[in-house]
Order: sequence, then structure tokens, then C-alpha cells
Amino acid sequence: MPFETFPPPGSPPGLLEHPTGRETHPSRLRLIWYNADSLEEKDDATLADVEAYKNRPGVKWLHLEGLQDLTLLENLNAILCCFHPLALEDVVEGRAPVKVDDYSNYIFIVNRLVTDLVEYNDEQISLFLGHDYLFSIQETHTDHFTILRERLRRGSGQFQSQGPDYLTYTIIDFLVDSWFPLLENFGELIEDLEDRLLVQPDGKLTIELQTLRRQMLRGRRLLWQVRESINNLLDNEGSLIHEHTRIYLRDCQDHAFQAIDLLENYRDIASSLIDIYLSSINNRLNEVMKVLTIIATIFMPLTFIAGVYGMNFKTELSPWNMPELSWYYGYPFSLALMVGVTIIMLFYFKSKKWF
Amino acid sequence: MPFETFPPPGSPPGLLEHPTGRETHPSRLRLIWYNADSLEEKDDATLADVEAYKNRPGVKWLHLEGLQDLTLLENLNAILCCFHPLALEDVVEGRAPVKVDDYSNYIFIVNRLVTDLVEYNDEQISLFLGHDYLFSIQETHTDHFTILRERLRRGSGQFQSQGPDYLTYTIIDFLVDSWFPLLENFGELIEDLEDRLLVQPDGKLTIELQTLRRQMLRGRRLLWQVRESINNLLDNEGSLIHEHTRIYLRDCQDHAFQAIDLLENYRDIASSLIDIYLSSINNRLNEVMKVLTIIATIFMPLTFIAGVYGMNFKTELSPWNMPELSWYYGYPFSLALMVGVTIIMLFYFKSKKWF
Amino acid sequence: MPFETFPPPGSPPGLLEHPTGRETHPSRLRLIWYNADSLEEKDDATLADVEAYKNRPGVKWLHLEGLQDLTLLENLNAILCCFHPLALEDVVEGRAPVKVDDYSNYIFIVNRLVTDLVEYNDEQISLFLGHDYLFSIQETHTDHFTILRERLRRGSGQFQSQGPDYLTYTIIDFLVDSWFPLLENFGELIEDLEDRLLVQPDGKLTIELQTLRRQMLRGRRLLWQVRESINNLLDNEGSLIHEHTRIYLRDCQDHAFQAIDLLENYRDIASSLIDIYLSSINNRLNEVMKVLTIIATIFMPLTFIAGVYGMNFKTELSPWNMPELSWYYGYPFSLALMVGVTIIMLFYFKSKKWF
Amino acid sequence: MPFETFPPPGSPPGLLEHPTGRETHPSRLRLIWYNADSLEEKDDATLADVEAYKNRPGVKWLHLEGLQDLTLLENLNAILCCFHPLALEDVVEGRAPVKVDDYSNYIFIVNRLVTDLVEYNDEQISLFLGHDYLFSIQETHTDHFTILRERLRRGSGQFQSQGPDYLTYTIIDFLVDSWFPLLENFGELIEDLEDRLLVQPDGKLTIELQTLRRQMLRGRRLLWQVRESINNLLDNEGSLIHEHTRIYLRDCQDHAFQAIDLLENYRDIASSLIDIYLSSINNRLNEVMKVLTIIATIFMPLTFIAGVYGMNFKTELSPWNMPELSWYYGYPFSLALMVGVTIIMLFYFKSKKWF
Amino acid sequence: MPFETFPPPGSPPGLLEHPTGRETHPSRLRLIWYNADSLEEKDDATLADVEAYKNRPGVKWLHLEGLQDLTLLENLNAILCCFHPLALEDVVEGRAPVKVDDYSNYIFIVNRLVTDLVEYNDEQISLFLGHDYLFSIQETHTDHFTILRERLRRGSGQFQSQGPDYLTYTIIDFLVDSWFPLLENFGELIEDLEDRLLVQPDGKLTIELQTLRRQMLRGRRLLWQVRESINNLLDNEGSLIHEHTRIYLRDCQDHAFQAIDLLENYRDIASSLIDIYLSSINNRLNEVMKVLTIIATIFMPLTFIAGVYGMNFKTELSPWNMPELSWYYGYPFSLALMVGVTIIMLFYFKSKKWF
Repeated sequence: MPFETFPPPGSPPGLLEHPTGRETHPSRLRLIWYNADSLEEKDDATLADVEAYKNRPGVKWLHLEGLQDLTLLENLNAILCCFHPLALEDVVEGRAPVKVDDYSNYIFIVNRLVTDLVEYNDEQISLFLGHDYLFSIQETHTDHFTILRERLRRGSGQFQSQGPDYLTYTIIDFLVDSWFPLLENFGELIEDLEDRLLVQPDGKLTIELQTLRRQMLRGRRLLWQVRESINNLLDNEGSLIHEHTRIYLRDCQDHAFQAIDLLENYRDIASSLIDIYLSSINNRLNEVMKVLTIIATIFMPLTFIAGVYGMNFKTELSPWNMPELSWYYGYPFSLALMVGVTIIMLFYFKSKKWF
Repeated sequence: MPFETFPPPGSPPGLLEHPTGRETHPSRLRLIWYNADSLEEKDDATLADVEAYKNRPGVKWLHLEGLQDLTLLENLNAILCCFHPLALEDVVEGRAPVKVDDYSNYIFIVNRLVTDLVEYNDEQISLFLGHDYLFSIQETHTDHFTILRERLRRGSGQFQSQGPDYLTYTIIDFLVDSWFPLLENFGELIEDLEDRLLVQPDGKLTIELQTLRRQMLRGRRLLWQVRESINNLLDNEGSLIHEHTRIYLRDCQDHAFQAIDLLENYRDIASSLIDIYLSSINNRLNEVMKVLTIIATIFMPLTFIAGVYGMNFKTELSPWNMPELSWYYGYPFSLALMVGVTIIMLFYFKSKKWF
Repeated sequence: MPFETFPPPGSPPGLLEHPTGRETHPSRLRLIWYNADSLEEKDDATLADVEAYKNRPGVKWLHLEGLQDLTLLENLNAILCCFHPLALEDVVEGRAPVKVDDYSNYIFIVNRLVTDLVEYNDEQISLFLGHDYLFSIQETHTDHFTILRERLRRGSGQFQSQGPDYLTYTIIDFLVDSWFPLLENFGELIEDLEDRLLVQPDGKLTIELQTLRRQMLRGRRLLWQVRESINNLLDNEGSLIHEHTRIYLRDCQDHAFQAIDLLENYRDIASSLIDIYLSSINNRLNEVMKVLTIIATIFMPLTFIAGVYGMNFKTELSPWNMPELSWYYGYPFSLALMVGVTIIMLFYFKSKKWF
Repeated sequence: MPFETFPPPGSPPGLLEHPTGRETHPSRLRLIWYNADSLEEKDDATLADVEAYKNRPGVKWLHLEGLQDLTLLENLNAILCCFHPLALEDVVEGRAPVKVDDYSNYIFIVNRLVTDLVEYNDEQISLFLGHDYLFSIQETHTDHFTILRERLRRGSGQFQSQGPDYLTYTIIDFLVDSWFPLLENFGELIEDLEDRLLVQPDGKLTIELQTLRRQMLRGRRLLWQVRESINNLLDNEGSLIHEHTRIYLRDCQDHAFQAIDLLENYRDIASSLIDIYLSSINNRLNEVMKVLTIIATIFMPLTFIAGVYGMNFKTELSPWNMPELSWYYGYPFSLALMVGVTIIMLFYFKSKKWF
Repeated sequence: MPFETFPPPGSPPGLLEHPTGRETHPSRLRLIWYNADSLEEKDDATLADVEAYKNRPGVKWLHLEGLQDLTLLENLNAILCCFHPLALEDVVEGRAPVKVDDYSNYIFIVNRLVTDLVEYNDEQISLFLGHDYLFSIQETHTDHFTILRERLRRGSGQFQSQGPDYLTYTIIDFLVDSWFPLLENFGELIEDLEDRLLVQPDGKLTIELQTLRRQMLRGRRLLWQVRESINNLLDNEGSLIHEHTRIYLRDCQDHAFQAIDLLENYRDIASSLIDIYLSSINNRLNEVMKVLTIIATIFMPLTFIAGVYGMNFKTELSPWNMPELSWYYGYPFSLALMVGVTIIMLFYFKSKKWF
């Protein structure tokens, strides 16, 4: 639910301002420079570092964690000279749709890292891909990409010898693959709900299922956007994405597809669980109604017979007034009558297949 | 609901007539002339003013508030020489779909300013974009665009140095961004309904939810049209829209997308709230039925037993006639019988997991 | 519902025969000849008139009302030399889909005039548009187009100075605009149903709503075809439709869109009314069940207590046999017991929020 | 339901074998040769006849009824030299989708003749269209195309003077038009169900409706395929289909469209009938519940009062013990009490608008 | 349900590792070399065999069953020199979507062999199609393709004389045709459920139906992918697929279409069965409620009357106190009263058409 406020209509575009109500995180700049042979790394890079490495041949990966320090972002922009103010606004606002915008000498990519699918937490990851650099920005201070830096440092594989487009692929692939642990978690949740639902159908479970289903709808919309955005990258006709990387992006798209497929399966399961629940509730209501009807149908005539023989007509005044009361076997007769009625009723229910 | 009447079929096209049943507002013409360096402004411009500024180099923004004075509109048309009568009819009728019509030397744009999403009030905003002017018309007398004029006057940013296409973008962006406060309001309404629904499910809430959902459907249809119309502007091959402005229009399209996404989320929430309500109503009915059945199932046999011992068979006439009545422990025996039946019933319900 | 029979499969194509079961109307031919300056009119034109005017420069509008006289149609065809037999068959059968068929030297247009949306009555209007003539055919004898002839006679506006393509536009525009009074009528019907539904939900109203919804589905399908067919006219690459008329056709398409939008709104309203009705029925059932359960739950124990003290155990034989009956305050005690049970029950219901 | 077995996976393609479980019909070959002036016909043609007519100028129509004699088919194939084995397999298996396959020197067309829509019986009609011949094959021995041969023999119209493509059109048109009697039959069935449903809603009718709806879904899928396949013929770029025939095929497509439209209307009606039935069932349940509740609510208090005055407290032991029993007007008082309770109840129900 | 874990996000691409939790099968390599005239076969081929046959003219079919021995796969890759690491990863992971990836000198095809549709078991089949070889890999050790090898060995037909693209077609055709026995099995299951549902509607059957429907959704998604992937093969512009094979692939696509059509039919049946079940449950509930209401409505007044005459008002104290008790025909009168009430009730129910 969007508690952050949007800027009032009519605000000028391209303003670098934090949305009111959004928590900001302290900024930290990481700089990694590498080519096929060597790699240099600055964990807390300064603007001077950026200036120093800027024109050095090789791939520069600038990674900004946390957006508290907007001046830093503006200065970086001045050094890198210069991203479109609308792109920078998208970075700071953190609620741009997943997309790929081509500004000819750089590509601006917005993607999201979903960190929780049940509570739906996500974070915008923005990428500026240039010819020899990647400038990536994340909203929070959490270090998501340690594992990627590790891989880069190890120097194994082709990672280090590829350009910034391959680095971009690696990050997008990371974002797509981050869906799988969430989806596995989701699958376990649904299976757990299924088990509980079959043991004892309870209305609260459907509320949970409905909520899960809603999140799945949301996740699916997001995943389709992700797929679409990778498609846009593949269709990009500029020279920023090399043929070699395209094959990897295609693989990444397959992964997105797999995630969508999993999600669709879970949605099917959730939907059929809700249907099963509804029909089991219906069954239960039927069963309850049947018990009620059987009990009522059996005891109402019996109580009526007992009521009749409880009437106080004066037997002594007339032979017509309840002579049964004075019969020698009056009471056994009345009991037999009741048993007879009961047996007839039971046969009736049997013929109706009520039990 | 359309209380205004449509012109009878067969009416000639291009008639400038107020739809019967529509309230009109007094007309007021604002004229702003600006170039990169200076800006002149006439709050109650006359036709003479328009004539005077018409051929002066720089951007002319003519803004007409209120459509009561149709002669004024016709005279303006004569001076600006000349818009298509069908476009003018669309302006006056105020119920054209959101669209972009390209008349080669000007573009006619229809958009809507939604001022209330719950009650669904909106107003048509019509724009004629020429090479050096923008002629914008709104139906009501309310001054919506103060904030834009402010930005223009301040002269900060690029606003003043851009052409009328950028001004057009600014207005469309204003219209799109006007959705967000409405949507936030909507979100609060839905959240409020959710809270009330979980505390005490009440049928009236679903009626409110259904009405909200209907408005959302309407809003979504409108927003898709808005998105589509911006797309048409982006695809426009004429020279009226500059490359520089296109990037801003693309951003505007992202905003429209964001609004649609919010709306979709609210729709999901509203749908699942209705489903949750229905299943909680179902649960409640089940619970009520269970209580009824338990009570009836327990008390019917008991009342029957009491009824039996209330029969008036003459014990003195026969040892077979209700000898229990004369037992020393007859009454305790009957009470014990009742307790026994109750216990058996409770065990039965327990085994059925009814409580 | 199609009571008219279709020709048996295997019938040769292009047969001019009235569908069995269709009521036919007497034929009447109107001929209007006009150019920018003058206009001549024959209300009951003969074939000779058609021959006479055939080669005269200017626009010829032949309008055939009623299809009883098929020979007349065939003779006209011979004079106008010659329409495709399949097109003529479509005219006579009167159940062709809304469409635009381009036969290079003329365009064959099928549209429908819906005269009642609630009972769903419509009539096929067929148009043959040539370079200097329009041949229009309607099924019934009713004079639908008086208003158009009036406009033509008045000579005001551009109508008279335009070609037959503009005349075609005028007729299509008339057909599209004919939807609006029907839709307004529809809107009033739905509003009326809404009012009645909120006052007293009644099953018969849903049947009416379902029927309206079905008609709306049908209307929507037809309107989409109309929109599509205007699109086909706009896409037509021949020289029969002039650029000037295209703008008007585009406007006509906007009107069709408006009609679809209105219809969609009504559909949303009808759907949510049905949902509201269903949930109010559900509520009512719940309420009824609650009253039943409360009454039963309160009175069953009370009746049981009264039953117990109505048992006839012999108090004189044993101090254990219903000593309460001999208590000094036995009766008040039993009444107090009943009141006590009632109060406990009421508290229980209160705690369950049943009232 | 497919009781015929499919060939096991891994079977070689192009095998000419009857599907196990399919009933086969004795084969009979008809040969018609015609040109604009004359026509020759062999009702039980032999392979020698085929050889004889093969190279004679004019149109050859070979029609094979029944597929029992596969050798005949193979020999015909050898003489006509030669169709693709996969196409022949499709012919023999009789379950190919409706389609148009272009093998450059001939077109292979698969269509279906639906003979019963309620029970869903259909039969595959396969056509091989060459430059001067049409080879058509049907599965059963029934003579479907007498009427077409009649038309051909009569020599009236253009039929005889056109090529085999026109003959192909005639057959496809026959297949499409065969839908209409079925659909009319369908419409009567639905109308009949509607009448019965409004008189007395019965669960069995919904089962029938559901079954009809399922058949309609199936029919609609098939009709869309038919429409699509005619589209493919129209898009065919080879020289086998002449321009003249295309116009007729377009008309045939209109017929398919009409059939789809009818089917859609029936589907709408069936759907709304089911909805109406469900809501009338709901209404009835409500009504039943209301009667039950009213009866129970009125009689439970009354029975309770009667029960109270049936208690056996000893009035002689205490003035507190049911003094009412000894009142002079005790019994009328108790009856008045009961009447009073009943009146209050009735007012309560009135205020709740329960009747 | 995916119990196998996905590799953690950020893992390098192209890793050849078994997914944790997946059971692996021992590897076995089959090599078949053939040309139009001769065929050689090695059932347990070694790397040396592969080396030996590698450059020999003719078609080489390498088939790897079981993926336990990843070194074997890597060595094969080295000899065949070389497939893309991402493709190899897809092979080993076994959860790539059904697809066709064109790597210019070979085509990588992923398809699935569904071995059980009810429990949903499937297995990935991966194919590398080169100019003179096909390298196929299956996950399990089961020998699926015996029948294909048989056909190849028999040398009949065109199989042996075609290239590896025809072999590829044969395998894909096998995979598609494998759906049919499963679907037939499915159809029997659904028919069986239908029979049981009509005899005795039971909630458990709907659960089964829901589960089947879910599997059908899954199967349909997969079949559409299969259809799409064959489409991709047909659209492939490289020289690896010959024109001759394309016709066979088109036939294979028809088969996929047939399977989808069957699946759609089963889905329709399953859906309407569920609807029928729900409405029969509804009917039953109605019937139960009616019996209950009839019983209650008849016996409540009767019991009330009996209760009244069971009251203990002292007849001796007042002539107003229940004089009926002392009437000569008091008891018959009361019984007659009861019978009268019952008859009135029965007439009332009759008029309401309750039985």
C-alpha cells in the first residue's frame, strides 16, 4: 500500500527529491575497475576516485548503496557527464516501472529486487549502462551483490574479460534468480495451507489464500514486466549490448519464464484450494442440515404423540375421551406407536439416501 | 450517469451548441507570451490582445476557462485561422474520448481532468498544439493550472526556453499526475473498508466495495486511453513534437503506467475483500446453523422424554402403564436418562468436530 | 431469436429471394439529385427517372424503402450496371454482418439501424457507394431519413456541395447516433431497476437485469463491428472516399466509441447490481437464520423445563420424585430458572455479536 | 468422447491405416467431368474411368464416399500422381484439424460436416484442389452432395462454367451452411428449456443447459477454425484460387461469421438462463426458510406457554404455585396471552417485511 | 511441486551441476551411424567410438540416457566442439522451458516427455541438431526410443535416407504423440468421475475434478509451448531444417493441435461437471430444507394443540377453564382439530408446489 506521497501534480519534472514518507539510507559508493587481467576495488570510493578511474581503459563498475546523499548523486552525474534528469528522478523516486530506456550513448534500466513476496517488499535497482562503465544504484544500504563481486574477484570464468554489458546481465540475472527462493518459500506456504485445509477447513485459511493470491497477481504483473524489459534489451539495436551477452540475456529470459510458470502453477493450486474449500464448506452445511432435519423429523412426531397422551381430557366423563389412557397395555401401545413412527421415518431417510 | 442529452441522430456535424442539461461556466481568456528571456501575461485577454500577439515570435499560450461565450470561441477560431469544425464541436460538447488527432498544421488533443474518482467527476481538457502556440480549453471556470503558470513565471528550469510542445507535455503531465492524489484517497478508502470488514462483516460494505470497483473499472478504461493517446503523440511523425519533448512524454507515460498499476492493485484488493466477505458470511451461516442444530439435537430428545413422562396413562389400572412414575427413584432415573442422552449427543458432536 | 429460416445448405449463391418467415414491406424508390447549387427530388421515382438522371453530372441518391418488389431491385441493378449478385443477395436476405466490401468501382456497405435495444429490433441498411451516386436500401417502409433530406434541402452547410461519400458518412453517422437515445433509455431502465432493487430486493428484478445484460452483450458485439467497419472505410485505399470525408468518418468512429463506453458503463452497473442483489439475498438469509436460531435456542430449553415439571411422577410415593412440585416456592423457582436460562442465552448471543 | 485409439507414439508417419475402433464404410467413387457446355457423370467410377478422363480438358470432380477400400485410395493416388503421404494419412485418420495446406501444385483442405450438434456427430471432408480437378473424400457412405450435383447438372448459373476452385467454394459453402439448420434446432431447444425453466425450475434442466453450453463451446471452436481456414484460402497466393472465386469465399466467410454470431447469442442466453435458474433456486430457499422461521417463531412461544400451564406444581400447597390455574378466567387468560404473543410476532415480521 | 532447489541467485551461468534434490540416473551412450544404405549401432558407445565416427559421412545419432556422469557430457562436448555452456546447463538442470534456440551451426531444442498427466511426471528431452548429427539427451535411464531405433533398423520408408533433421522430427513427433495415450487415460478418468457423480454426488469427487482440472491447465500451458516451439523450428531460416522435413513438422504441429483440442474438450467437461455437481448439491439442500419445513410446519401446531389440552387449569373452579376437557366428545374434537390443521397445511404446501 503506498503510504509515500506522490509529488503534487504540476511539479516540475526532473526534480531530485526524496518522496516524503520514504525512509532513506546512508549513501556509500563502491568502485570496481577491471579488465581481463587485473582488478582494483575501492569499497568507499570518493568523487576523486571516480575522476581518477574515469578515463582509464577497462570496465568501471560504480555501485551506489543508499540514496541519502543526493549531492553525491549529482556530483557523480556531473563527472560522468551526464544522465537525463528524468532518469535521475526515476532513480531517486524509486517507483519507476521496470523498463529499459535507450538514451543512445547509455541505456537506463530499471528493475526491482523483490525481497519478500508474502509481505511484498521490493527495492528499485537502477542501472546506467555505458560503453565502458556500469553505474548501478540501489535504494537501501544492504549489500546485495557481495556474491557478484566475489565472482568478479575470483577472476574465474569469463566474467572479468567481458564488458559492462555482461556485468549488466549478471545483475539482471541475479534479480531474476532472486525470485526462486521466494517462490520456493511461497510453494511451501501453499502446501502448508493445503495440508491444514484438508485436515480442518477453516475460514481464516481462505483469507490467507486470498492474500497469497493477491500477492501472486502482483508478482506476476511484475515478472511479465521483467520479461518484457529483457526483451527490450535483446531488441536494442545499439552497440552497447554485444552478441555474446545477448545469448546470456536470452537465458535470463528463460529463467524469468520459469519463474512465471511456477507462479502460474501456484496460482492454479491456490484457486483450486479455494474452490475445494468452498465446496467442502457447502458439504458441511449440507451434512449439518441433514442431521438437523433427521433429528427434527424423528422427534417432532414422537413429542406430538407424547403430547397427545398428556392431554387432560376427563376419561371418566365419556368413553370417547382418551380411552387409551385406561387400556391395560395403553403405555406399551403408545411406546410401540412411537417406535413404529421412528422406523418408518428411518426407512424414508434410507430411501432418500440421507445416510 | 449521462443526464445530458445527446443531439438527435441526423444533426449536422460541427455544430457549436452546448449539450442540453450541461451547466456552462462564464468564459475567461488568459494569454501568456514567452520566450527564453521574457514573459508577458494577460489575465483577461481580449480578442485584440490575441491579434496583437498573434504574429510575435515566441510561444503563445491561450487558455480559455469556461465555455459559456461560444462567440468568443468562434472569434478566436477566426483569428487563429482555423481549426476543424469537428474539433471545435468536440471542445464544446465535452464528451469526446481521450484522443490525439493530427491535422498536419496543428494537433488536437483531448484529455480529461478527473477531479473525483469516488463520485466520478471529470472535465474535458482540449488542446490545440500549433507551431508557436498552444490553445487550451477547459469546461469549468476553476483555475486548475495556477501552479503551471507559476513555474513558467519563475523562469527557472528549461520550461520557458522550450516550445509549445513542452508546454503541452506539462499540461498532460499535470493531468496524469492529478490521478495520484485521487488514487491515494482511494487506497485509504479501501483500507478503511478492509478494517471495517474484518471487525464486523456487513452487507453494506460490499455495496460500497462494488461501487468502488465499478469506479475503478471506469478509471482503468480512462487511464488506458490516456496511455494510448500519449503513445499516439510519441508516434506522431510531424515536426510539432520535438525529440527533446518526446523523452518527457515517455516519462509521462511511465506515470500513467504507475497509476494503472496502483489501480490494478486496488482492484485486486477490492476483489479479494469481496471474496473474503462472502466466505466469512458463509462461515457465519455455518456457525449459526451448527448452533441451531446442536441446540435442537440436544433438546428435542430431552423434551420428548419429559413429554413421555407427562402422559396421563392410568398407572392404577395396569402394571404396564408407566410403572416408572411410581418407582421410588423414578424422577432421578428420568433426569439421569436425560443427562445420559445429552452426554451421548455431545460425544457425537465432538466426533463430528462440530465444536 | 431467429424464426426466419435460412436457405437450405447447397442453395446456389446470389439468389434474390426473401427469407421465408420474414415480413416484407412495399417498395418505394426516392431519387434525389443535387450539386452545390441545385437539388431535384422525386419521392416516388420510377425506373425511367433513374435512367434520366443516371448520366447527369452531380450526386444521385437513390433510396429504396421496403424490399417487396424484387423486380424493381433487379431492374435498378440492370440500369446501374451492375452490382455483384452476392451483394444483392446480402441486401435481400437482410442478415449480413456489418461490413465494408470493396468492389473497386463501388463500395458495398452493410450497417444496421437498431430501433429497440430492450426488445432488440434492428433493420439492415445497405449502401452502394459509387463515384457519383449512393444507392441505399432499407428493409422496412418506415421513413428513417427525413431529417437528412431536410438538411440536404436546406442547402445550408457543406452537405450539398460534397460528394456521395459525404452522404454515406451522413447516413452512417445517423446510424451511429441512433444508438444514443436507445442507450439513454437503457440507462434510465437500469437506474430504475437500481432504485427498485435497493428498496426491495426481488428475484424478478435479477431476471430483468440478466435480460438487459444479454442485450448489452449483443449491442456491444454489434457496436464493435460498426467501429471495425468504419475503420475499414478509413483504411480504404480507393478514390471513392475523399480526404475531407475521412475526418468526418473519424469523428463518427469517436461517436461509436462513446456509445461503446456508455454501454460498458451500463454493463458494469448491471453486473454490480446483480452482485449487490446476490449479497443482499445472502444477508437476508443469514438474518432469517439468526432469528430462527435465537428463537429456537431460547424456547427449546424453556419448553424442556416446562416439560420436566409437567411429568407425572408420583410425589407421594417417594421424596425423590419431583419434590420441587411440592415446594412452597416451586413455581416461582421454575419461572426464575427459565428467566435465568434466557438471560444466559442472551448474553451468549451478545458475545457472538448476533444482535 | 474419443473412443478410437490413436496410433502408438513412434509410429511411422504417412501410414494408411484405419484407426482402430472406427467404423468404416464401403467405398464408392463418383466421377463428374464438365466444362461450360457439357457434363458427363459416372456414379460408380472405376480406376479405368479416372485414367480415361484424367487428361481430358475440363473440370474433373472425383468424389470418394466411404474409406473401406484403402487400395482404391492408393491406386487413385498413383493415377493422380501424387499427393503427400501425410495428407493421405490425414484423410484416412479422419481427425485432422480444419485446415488449408498448400502443396504448391495442389491445395489440401480439411473441413468437417457437423451432422448433429446436440450429440456432436461430425465427419471429415477432405479436398484436394488441383488446376483442373477436385478430389473430395468423405468418411461415410451417406450421399451428402446430391444437391450440388443437381445444381451442376441443371447447368443453370455460372457453376458449370467455372473451374474446380469454384466447385471447392461450393462444397465449403455447403459445409458452412449446414450449420444453420443445426443452429436453428439448437435455438428451439434452448427456447424450449427457457419455457420449462420459467414454469418450474428443476435441477435437471441445468444439467441439460450445461451440456448444451459445452457443445456450443465445441461448436464455436470448430467454427473459428473454419473461418480461419477460409481466411487461409483467401490469403493463398498461388494461382489455384481465382479472383472470381475469392469474392464467393468472402461471402462464405460472412456466413461462417453469421453462424458464430448465432452461436454467441445462444451462449449468452444459455448462460443467463443458468444464472436465472440459480437465483430462482436461491429465492425459493429463502422463501422456504422464511416460512419455517415464521412457523417456528410463532409456535415455539405458544407451546412454551402451554407447557408452563401443564406443569404439575401443587397449587394446594402454596399460593405461589401457579395460582393462574385456579383463576376463574385462567384458561381464557392463557389463550389471550397466546393470541397476544402471536400478534406481536406478526407485527415484528411485518416490520421486517417478511411477508 | 518443486522440491528441488534452484541454484542461489548470483551463481555463475553455465555451471554443470545437478540440482540438489534431483535423483540422477547412470549414464549410457548409444551411437547410431547410418546413411541411406547401411546402419551401424553401438549400444554402449565410448568416447573413442564417438571420435571414430565423428568425421565419417552419414548421419550420427548420439543418444545419452541418464545424466549421472557429467564428465562424459563434458568430454562429448569437447569432441563435438562445442555447444554453448548455457545450453549444456539447461540440459543438466532439466527445467528449461520448451524452446528452440538457434546457435547458427546447431539448433538447441528443449522438449518434454510427459509420462503421467494425473500425477504430472515429466522428463526433459534435449536435442542438439547439427548438419550431420543429432545429439539427444534424456534425464532418466528408461529406454524411451526403442521403437524409433527399430524403425531405423528396419530401413523401410524414408527414415534412413533422410538427414538428422528428419530424425529430430521423428523424436518431436514421438513426444507429441506420447500425449495421446495420456489424454485417452484422462478421458476415461473424467468419464468415470461423471458416472460416479451422476449416481451419487459426493464432495470428494469435486476435489478430484479440481485436481484434474489443475493438471489440465498445466498440460495446456505445456502443449502451447510445444506448438510454439515447433512453429519456431518451421520459421527457422537456417539450412539445418530441410523443406522436406518442414512438411512433416507441420503435421506434427497438427497433432499438437489435436492434443490441445482434446484437452480443451476435457476441460469443458470437467468444468461443467463441477457446475452440475454444485447445482445438484444446491438442489439437495433445498429438498432437505423443504422436508424439514414441512415436518416442522405440520407438527408444531399439532404439538401446540396437544400442549393446550395438557394444561392443568382447574375445570372444577370455573366453567371458563378448559370446558373442552369435560365435553363428551372432547378428545375426538381435539383430534379432529389436529387433522383439520394438517389438511389445511397440506393444501398450503400443495399451492406452493412444494411437493
